Amino acid sequence: MADIRKLSTKEIYEINQKRVVPDHLNRTKIILHNIRSMYNVGSVFRSADAFGIGELILTGYTPCPPRPEISKTALGAEEHVYWSQYDHFESAREILKAKNYTFIGIEQTNQSRSLIDYVIDYSQPVAIIMGNEVTGIDQDIMPLIDEFIDIPQYGEKHSLNVSVTAGIVMFSLLEKNLSMK
Amino acid sequence: MADIRKLSTKEIYEINQKRVVPDHLNRTKIILHNIRSMYNVGSVFRSADAFGIGELILTGYTPCPPRPEISKTALGAEEHVYWSQYDHFESAREILKAKNYTFIGIEQTNQSRSLIDYVIDYSQPVAIIMGNEVTGIDQDIMPLIDEFIDIPQYGEKHSLNVSVTAGIVMFSLLEKNLSMK
Repeated sequence: MADIRKLSTKEIYEINQKRVVPDHLNRTKIILHNIRSMYNVGSVFRSADAFGIGELILTGYTPCPPRPEISKTALGAEEHVYWSQYDHFESAREILKAKNYTFIGIEQTNQSRSLIDYVIDYSQPVAIIMGNEVTGIDQDIMPLIDEFIDIPQYGEKHSLNVSVTAGIVMFSLLEKNLSMK
Repeated sequence: MADIRKLSTKEIYEINQKRVVPDHLNRTKIILHNIRSMYNVGSVFRSADAFGIGELILTGYTPCPPRPEISKTALGAEEHVYWSQYDHFESAREILKAKNYTFIGIEQTNQSRSLIDYVIDYSQPVAIIMGNEVTGIDQDIMPLIDEFIDIPQYGEKHSLNVSVTAGIVMFSLLEKNLSMK
């Protein structure tokens, strides 16, 4: 390509700052429940910052900042993303339910809809729940979640990494929001 | 939700096996050039398996299997995804150019199009190039790439993790392929 050049960090920062996060993403909460790996938590912080997610909520035994292992993959995003921590998922849920949040679990269930076909109801803010790296969303909180979506997959292994999944879901929300306009 | 239950690993495997990967994804190559982290390489293997990517091509100093650190995040996907290694990006490019591949770099440049607006030309197979975690795609191979796309971002930090970015790009290709039908 002619005259192609990479943007500098400063240019990228200025472009990002000028963009206005769609309201719906700004109101979206990402809940990480019983996630084991600090690297995964850090990576989700980084993606949440990139996509302008309103709040990251860490519940159960999910580790929270400040931890060097989180910072290593968050690259400082944990200082820019609003976050909170609750020992119990139910406590976070109660607060958000009072604000009319719809709870969407990312999980392969017998009733999951595909993320690709999923249509956002813009009248309600959403909380996206991601569960443990190995076991997924704990069985005991499944009934507390309003709907489930999954990502169509093809491979021999049965799931994507949790931080990759979180990034894909945030991107898809952004894409659906932008295509509304 | 009523009667909601998680699918077992066996059920998920059976569903995934029944799905047929869109041809275009099957022909798509992902090139990782001068990626430093084995964990990132492993994570891309896992996503490439999940999305039915035809081949992962590791060029430059990008580490390749077998390495325990790659397996740790690939979770065995490195044994299911077809992959190859070339010391020089140019060698991989020459082979693919003879097969009419279009080269698409994932990079924030002065001429990048947004992944969201990007329209796939289904008449040509594509090779997606991802570069180093910190410095991105090396300047010396930039002129060898046909077009560039980036992911719209908002945050204080200037980029997503490379394995998250790769997952988002693969998901977006899948989504565009499925919506063609």
